[in-house]
Amino acid sequence: MATPQGASSALGIIRLSGPQAHQILAKIFRTTSPTLLPRCVYFGTIYDGERIIDEVLVHIAAAPSSFTGEDTAEINCHGSPYILQEIVRLAMAAGASPASPGEFTQRAFLNGKIDLAQAEAVADIIASENEAAHRLAMLQMRGGFSQEISNLRSALVDFASLLELELDFSDEDVTFADRPQLLNLLEQALQTIESLCASFRLGNVIKNGVPVAIVGAPNVGKSTLLNALLGEERAIVSDIHGTTRDTIEEEITLEGIRFRFIDTAGLRDTNEEIEQLGVMRSYQKIQSASLLLLVLDASKPECFKEQMQHVATKIDSSTQQVIVVLNKSDICTDNNIVNNISDILKEENISFYSISTISAKQKLGIDSLKSILATAIRSRFDDAKHIHSSIIISNLRHLHALQEAQKSLSRVRESLTTLLPTDLIVQDLRLVLYEIGKITGDIATDEILGNIFAKFCIGK
Amino acid sequence: MATPQGASSALGIIRLSGPQAHQILAKIFRTTSPTLLPRCVYFGTIYDGERIIDEVLVHIAAAPSSFTGEDTAEINCHGSPYILQEIVRLAMAAGASPASPGEFTQRAFLNGKIDLAQAEAVADIIASENEAAHRLAMLQMRGGFSQEISNLRSALVDFASLLELELDFSDEDVTFADRPQLLNLLEQALQTIESLCASFRLGNVIKNGVPVAIVGAPNVGKSTLLNALLGEERAIVSDIHGTTRDTIEEEITLEGIRFRFIDTAGLRDTNEEIEQLGVMRSYQKIQSASLLLLVLDASKPECFKEQMQHVATKIDSSTQQVIVVLNKSDICTDNNIVNNISDILKEENISFYSISTISAKQKLGIDSLKSILATAIRSRFDDAKHIHSSIIISNLRHLHALQEAQKSLSRVRESLTTLLPTDLIVQDLRLVLYEIGKITGDIATDEILGNIFAKFCIGK
Repeated sequence: MATPQGASSALGIIRLSGPQAHQILAKIFRTTSPTLLPRCVYFGTIYDGERIIDEVLVHIAAAPSSFTGEDTAEINCHGSPYILQEIVRLAMAAGASPASPGEFTQRAFLNGKIDLAQAEAVADIIASENEAAHRLAMLQMRGGFSQEISNLRSALVDFASLLELELDFSDEDVTFADRPQLLNLLEQALQTIESLCASFRLGNVIKNGVPVAIVGAPNVGKSTLLNALLGEERAIVSDIHGTTRDTIEEEITLEGIRFRFIDTAGLRDTNEEIEQLGVMRSYQKIQSASLLLLVLDASKPECFKEQMQHVATKIDSSTQQVIVVLNKSDICTDNNIVNNISDILKEENISFYSISTISAKQKLGIDSLKSILATAIRSRFDDAKHIHSSIIISNLRHLHALQEAQKSLSRVRESLTTLLPTDLIVQDLRLVLYEIGKITGDIATDEILGNIFAKFCIGK
Repeated sequence: MATPQGASSALGIIRLSGPQAHQILAKIFRTTSPTLLPRCVYFGTIYDGERIIDEVLVHIAAAPSSFTGEDTAEINCHGSPYILQEIVRLAMAAGASPASPGEFTQRAFLNGKIDLAQAEAVADIIASENEAAHRLAMLQMRGGFSQEISNLRSALVDFASLLELELDFSDEDVTFADRPQLLNLLEQALQTIESLCASFRLGNVIKNGVPVAIVGAPNVGKSTLLNALLGEERAIVSDIHGTTRDTIEEEITLEGIRFRFIDTAGLRDTNEEIEQLGVMRSYQKIQSASLLLLVLDASKPECFKEQMQHVATKIDSSTQQVIVVLNKSDICTDNNIVNNISDILKEENISFYSISTISAKQKLGIDSLKSILATAIRSRFDDAKHIHSSIIISNLRHLHALQEAQKSLSRVRESLTTLLPTDLIVQDLRLVLYEIGKITGDIATDEILGNIFAKFCIGK
């Protein structure tokens, strides 16, 4: 079943794939044409013996010209859960077996139609909820990332071949590989891997949303601000689990980028035990956020310093951006207030991206704040548009493989410069190739495949 | 969107219908073939400008050889809510407008591809949840019921023509129509209508499930019995609203027939106000049930009489069947107990279908009770299998039309026998034809169409 199970709709799809697909179809489907041609649509009837189950449209494809690379049949029936279930039952009685999650995509991989990174992108495409995540997954499915990895791999294979040639002739003490040139090639490969690893932070944020913490003292209007930001644009909360998410939080999509707002308790010194716990949890959440909205009450400038001091030590400027949100601006009379804040921020050593003046209650300045949020993320990663041109990884499995490759490749560099024996270098290089091969599936164990495809939905 | 909205799955379908369908497709879909042939499947790409939205399979149909009778295009894309929404957005930007609920089926009706009763069956097919309901809807969609109505109508039209001919020559006092023969024809038509009306009770039960009330004194094991009946076979509770349902109750499907179990509070005399309310509601529910499971505690035969007296006055033997369920049989030692019960039932004038001995707690006799439930319903309507051969109506709109036709036709019969003027007879006959014409849509007002198609799901 390739369409959602259990939900009624106009149409539903059932797919068969494998050497018996056409024969199984022939057992349950009757039409006026004596034979079915690939890629033609036939109207006909699904029968259970003499009982009519549904009137359907059917088309078949012949190996290897199908998604899976096998003979396939696709049945478009009415979208009744009962009919879908009956057709599946009939197909199974005729010899079909139920597909495991991701089995269609897995077969496409095993039959050489797509590589492993492309297969993983299929799941990402289905799960993508916004423009940026969809762009990223689509680029990966169409082979952009695979091409980059393939280039990297073939450069390293050439490199390894030269070194292995040396090993074969080691008795004769020949040096085939020009060491400075090798070192140069190595640096390039390391750079590529490093930049791919570095792109994961953006990739992950695109795929799973930018974690934003709204912080500030009690009663500065954090909840009102959250509600104003969510407004009508409040995202449908999904239960798709991502890499960095462990709870489901409030989400909105701004300019194609998803933001996840993390709820934080009010920050202030307290002796009460339960409240202390809440504050501690807030600090933990602040640390996991990429963006901090530091909310200040414009009507109480005397408290600014104290509030900033609370936050100051908790911010990691290398990975976190601070946007200062001056709330209740409608009841503030001090025109110099923004300058004052800048000064205090400087004193407290808090570097900030922007100061935004709003009234959460009156919904003033909210649109401008939203646009600042989107721009902040874009600016941080140069330009989010570069996901068109260069490659961004968003898959934790790919990151781990690349990090392992990076470690081994660094050892190769060290060995080359310290003139260690070639056989040691070759051993490390093989590890690099092994890790990189895992990404596209040139190296694929049952365990890797099992892990990947178990996360797919059934029918894909 | 022809597949469920908002749910992720392997594939999704978007359909376009209307004179512009092919042009709109051409604006958003690119493939290697220069032209698309009807009923051929094309692999290609949906573009938003230069941005790739998805890789899809597409096939088109040309008017009038499509479900709607118009030019159509069907896009099979990845089942991501984001991608589906983007393709719909692109199609709308290219000139498409969103389909109202049931608009595809409504167009099929307006273009003469199907009649109204068939159109309604499309919705029933999608909503059908069990074999009997599905059989019924499929028969109706394939035109079985429409044929019956059409035969009835043409017989009545012939009848009316003869009478109207008489009217045209009324000055000459000619009698074209042989009155006894007319009366005979009339009786046949009335019989057909009566049997169709009578079939609604079964049709409705098939479509909406058999309402079953489990009644009995407190602590006889009603809830345990319900749980034992539901067991693993507990139906997915749907939110499709049927004709006779106002709340969602526990459901199971037994031998292809759906049973809806109505929860009833324990029945006993009480002075407590709130409990009295519950008992009153139980009695109301008992009256709406087709089947009553009267549960007795086998270990307390001394209470049988009192318990039966409570129920006796509430049962309508003409429409309700009673199955006596003797629970806790595992702790009962009296072998004569079934005979005793029969005697008391006779004394209390309760006619019953069967006495079933079970232990709900030990799950003894449950399968046999289930089979008795199914058989009881079958026996009541002679044989449920006759839905293969004869026609059963399940649509409240059809019932109303038939009942109205029946009233007018009865007046025609009366007028014929009392020799009333022909013009009065003709007037009533026109009313009959009007009501019958509404069923298949020969007579269709915007209001009728609006009411029917508003209940469809979007995309159908």
